[in-house]
Amino acid sequence: MHSEEYVPTASNSITARLAIENKPGMLAEITSTIGKHGGNIGAIDIVRARDSVLVRDITINTRSDDHARTIITHLGDLKGVRVVDVSDRTFLLHLGGKIEVNSKVPLRTRDQLSMAYTPGVARVCEAIHDRPDDAHRLTIKSNTVAVVSDGTAVLGLGDIGPEAAIPVMEGKAQLLKEFAGVNGFPICLDTTDVDEIVDTVVRMAPVFGAINLEDIGAPRCFEIEDRLRERLDIPVFHDDQHGTAVVAVAALINALKIVDKTPESLKVVLVGIGAAGTAVTHMLQNMGIENIIGVDRQGAVTRDRTDLNKAKRAYAAQTNPHNLTGSLSEVMDDADVFIGLSGPNVIDVDDLHRMADDPIVFAMANPEPEIRPEKAYPHVAVMATGRSDYPNQINNVLCFPGMFKGALACRATDITDGMKLAAAYAVADTIDDASRTADYIVPSVFDKAVVDRVAEAVEAAAHEEGVARTRS
Amino acid sequence: MHSEEYVPTASNSITARLAIENKPGMLAEITSTIGKHGGNIGAIDIVRARDSVLVRDITINTRSDDHARTIITHLGDLKGVRVVDVSDRTFLLHLGGKIEVNSKVPLRTRDQLSMAYTPGVARVCEAIHDRPDDAHRLTIKSNTVAVVSDGTAVLGLGDIGPEAAIPVMEGKAQLLKEFAGVNGFPICLDTTDVDEIVDTVVRMAPVFGAINLEDIGAPRCFEIEDRLRERLDIPVFHDDQHGTAVVAVAALINALKIVDKTPESLKVVLVGIGAAGTAVTHMLQNMGIENIIGVDRQGAVTRDRTDLNKAKRAYAAQTNPHNLTGSLSEVMDDADVFIGLSGPNVIDVDDLHRMADDPIVFAMANPEPEIRPEKAYPHVAVMATGRSDYPNQINNVLCFPGMFKGALACRATDITDGMKLAAAYAVADTIDDASRTADYIVPSVFDKAVVDRVAEAVEAAAHEEGVARTRS
Repeated sequence: MHSEEYVPTASNSITARLAIENKPGMLAEITSTIGKHGGNIGAIDIVRARDSVLVRDITINTRSDDHARTIITHLGDLKGVRVVDVSDRTFLLHLGGKIEVNSKVPLRTRDQLSMAYTPGVARVCEAIHDRPDDAHRLTIKSNTVAVVSDGTAVLGLGDIGPEAAIPVMEGKAQLLKEFAGVNGFPICLDTTDVDEIVDTVVRMAPVFGAINLEDIGAPRCFEIEDRLRERLDIPVFHDDQHGTAVVAVAALINALKIVDKTPESLKVVLVGIGAAGTAVTHMLQNMGIENIIGVDRQGAVTRDRTDLNKAKRAYAAQTNPHNLTGSLSEVMDDADVFIGLSGPNVIDVDDLHRMADDPIVFAMANPEPEIRPEKAYPHVAVMATGRSDYPNQINNVLCFPGMFKGALACRATDITDGMKLAAAYAVADTIDDASRTADYIVPSVFDKAVVDRVAEAVEAAAHEEGVARTRS
Repeated sequence: MHSEEYVPTASNSITARLAIENKPGMLAEITSTIGKHGGNIGAIDIVRARDSVLVRDITINTRSDDHARTIITHLGDLKGVRVVDVSDRTFLLHLGGKIEVNSKVPLRTRDQLSMAYTPGVARVCEAIHDRPDDAHRLTIKSNTVAVVSDGTAVLGLGDIGPEAAIPVMEGKAQLLKEFAGVNGFPICLDTTDVDEIVDTVVRMAPVFGAINLEDIGAPRCFEIEDRLRERLDIPVFHDDQHGTAVVAVAALINALKIVDKTPESLKVVLVGIGAAGTAVTHMLQNMGIENIIGVDRQGAVTRDRTDLNKAKRAYAAQTNPHNLTGSLSEVMDDADVFIGLSGPNVIDVDDLHRMADDPIVFAMANPEPEIRPEKAYPHVAVMATGRSDYPNQINNVLCFPGMFKGALACRATDITDGMKLAAAYAVADTIDDASRTADYIVPSVFDKAVVDRVAEAVEAAAHEEGVARTRS
C-alpha cells in the first residue's frame, strides 16, 4: 500500500499548524519546501496574526505516514518556522466514529414522550404482536441493513479482528445512508466459527430488513451466506462476492458493446477463485457465457486436479468445459476477456498479445492491479481496474446501495440471481449509447442516476421472481 | 390499560379529516359532539376551503381505540359531516421506525470518500489492530449502547417476542440520544435461552461501549446480567432492575429528609420480588437500611418457606433479619416505607394506618398502582408512583441516560454499586433544600440539569472504584 510511485492523496492528508515569523518570503519558502519533498498543498488558512508571528494551518496531501513525517521535519528545520501541531485528517474524521443514531422526532414534551414511548408505544407493540409482518411497516426493520463482519478479510489487510474492522463497517453504513437513504449498522463479531456466526446473525435478525455480509474470508463466506439465506426470511448478501460481480458484469455488458461481441462467443480467463471470483463466474454463466477458465496460483483450475478444496472442486465442476490445462499464459491464448481478482503483476504484455482481437481486460486487484493500465492500454480494446485514479473504476458502491434500497422497498425475502442481473443491466444502462466509449463503460460512483435505476430494476425483478412481499 | 376512569391523552391521539358543509354552526356542533363523548380537542386546521365544503383536520385525544371509534361514529352521523380519513398519531409517528443512522460527514467528493472509506480507512484499521483499545477512540464504540431484549417482559404486555419489542427498544435509543447525546441501537433477540442470549451478546459486543439489557423476564435476567458482566470488559446494565432502583432510592433519599428519618432506623416493606424489587432491595442495603421485608403473593418472604425459587431463596437469605412472617397487612405494622413493584389494589387505607408515623409510600405498579394516590394522600407523608399524571413520578429516564454518558466518558469496564449510589444521590441532589417538598422529591424528566449531574457523579465514582480506563 506504500509506494513511492503513488501520488499524494487525501487519504494521507495532514494539517500542519505552523507559527511563522512574519516577514516577506516565508510562505514561499514553506510552500516550495513542501513541493520539493513531494507534498501536494490543499488549503492554507490563517489561524492567528500578531505583529511578529503568523500562525497558519496548511493542509498537505502526502503519500504515506513516513512521507508526512519527512515533510514535517523539513518544515521544522526552516529558520523562522515552528511546527505547533500536526493533525492527520483521516484520523480526525474517525474520532468518536463516523456514524450516529438519531431520533427522527424531538422528545421535549410529555405528549411526544407518550406517543414515542410509554404508554402510546404499547399499542404499537400489541399491533406487531398480532401481525409480526407489521414490523416491516412500523419499525426500522423497514429500512435497516446489518453490516456484518468477523474481521477476517478486511480490505487488503486480511485477518485483523472485529474491533479493527469497525471503521470499514461504519464506512459501509455511511455509504448506505448517503447514497441510498438506507440505515446501516455495523456488527463486528467476536468469533470466526461458521456455526457461531450463523447462529448469532439468526438471533439478532429481528430488527433488520436485510443482512450485508462483509470482509469474511473465503471459503467460510460461502457456507455462511448459504445457511443464512436458508434460515432467514430477509435478504442476505455478501457484497464482496456479489457486489463485485454485479459491477464487473455491468462493465462487461458495456465493454461487449464496444467490441461488438456476444456473450455466447466469448472465451473468458478469470484469475483468483475466491469470494468475488466465484460470484463473478456464476453471473457470467447467467449471462450465457459458458467458456470460462478459472486460474489459481497452480494454474488452470481443472477437474483432474487433486489439490483443490471443496469450493474449488465445485468451481472446477461447473467451468472450463473444454478442460484446458496449463499455466495462466497458456490458457490466455485467444481469450476475449481477462478478469483478475488476485494480486499484482500476474500478467504482462506478452499475455495480452496471446489474447484474441480487441481484448477486454479487467485487472481488479487492489491497490496494485494484475497489470498496470499504462502498460496495457496499447494492447487492449477496453481496460478497467478497481482504482479510482484510472477510468472505468469497478466499484461495489455502484451496486449495494440501490440493491438494498430496492430489496427493502418490496420487503424481498431474498436477493436472487435475477435481481443481481437486473442490477447489472441497470448500472450498465445508466450510460446511454451516445456516451459509451472504451474509457467510459461504467458510471461514476457520484452519478446520482445510478441508485434509483438499480433500486427500481431490483424491485421489479423481485416481483417477477416471486420474492417480493408488497404488491407490485 | 383501558379504563373509563382515565383521561384522554396524546398516546391515544387521532387526527380526523372531516369534510364539512360550509354553513354557520357546523364547527360548534362538531366540537360539542366530541366533548359530549369525552374527547379532548387539540389542533383544528383548515385543509381545503371551497364554496360549499370545508375540509378540516381535527386532532382529538381519546382514552382508547374503542373510544376513538365511538367518537368518529358520532361525528359521521352528524348531518353535513363526512369523515374523510382518520389517522392515529401514535402509529403515524412509528411508520418506518423512530430512529435513523446518519453519516456524521457528507460523502460527496472523491477526497471525502478516500478519508472515510478506502484507502484512508485502512490506516485507521491498522492503528486499531495495533492497539485494540483505540477502538474506544476511533469508532462508535466510544459512544454507543446496545439496547438488548428478548421480548419476554415488555412493558405491561409480558412475553410478546422480539419483533413486537422493537418499538420500545427504538424508544430507548431515542431517549439515549435526545437526553444524553449517546447512540443507542436496538437488538431484539430471537431466542429466550440464557446460554444463547449470553453467547450472542458476547459475540456482537465489539462495536459497543456498553450493553443495556431491557424487558428480559426474571429470573433469567439475573443470570444473563451476571454472566455478561463477567465475560465482557464493557458495562452491562439491566435498566429494569437498576434504573428503577436508582431512581426509587433517589426519591427515598429526599423523602427521608422530608420526614426527618435516617436509613438505619427504617422498617421497609417491599412487594414484588422480581427484577426491580431485587435491585431496589440491594441498593437500600447499600444505603444502610437493614430491616427490609419482601412480600410476594404468598406473603412475607422468609427463610423457612419451602416454595421459593433460587432467586427468591437468595433474597430471603439476605433480608427480613427479624424473620417476620404473615400476610402483607400483618408485616405492614410500624413500617416506615412501603415500596410496591407489583400490581393494582395490593394495599388499602387500613394498611396505611398500620404503618408508623409519617409513612412513605412508593406505589410503582404501572399503569395501576398498588393504591390510588387520591386514596393514600390523607394518610401518608410522602407518596410517589410510576405515573406521569401524579407528582413524584419515579421514572428510569432520570437515570440511564446520565449513567451511560458517564460510564462511556471514562470507558468504564463495569457499572458498580458505588456508581449506582452516586447516580441516586446526583438525581436527589438536583432538588435543592429550598425546593424540596412532599410533592417534589424527584426531578422532572425534562429537567435539563439531571443528565450531566448524573454523568459527572457516575464518572467520578468509576474512577474511585477503579473501573475507569481514562485518567481522572
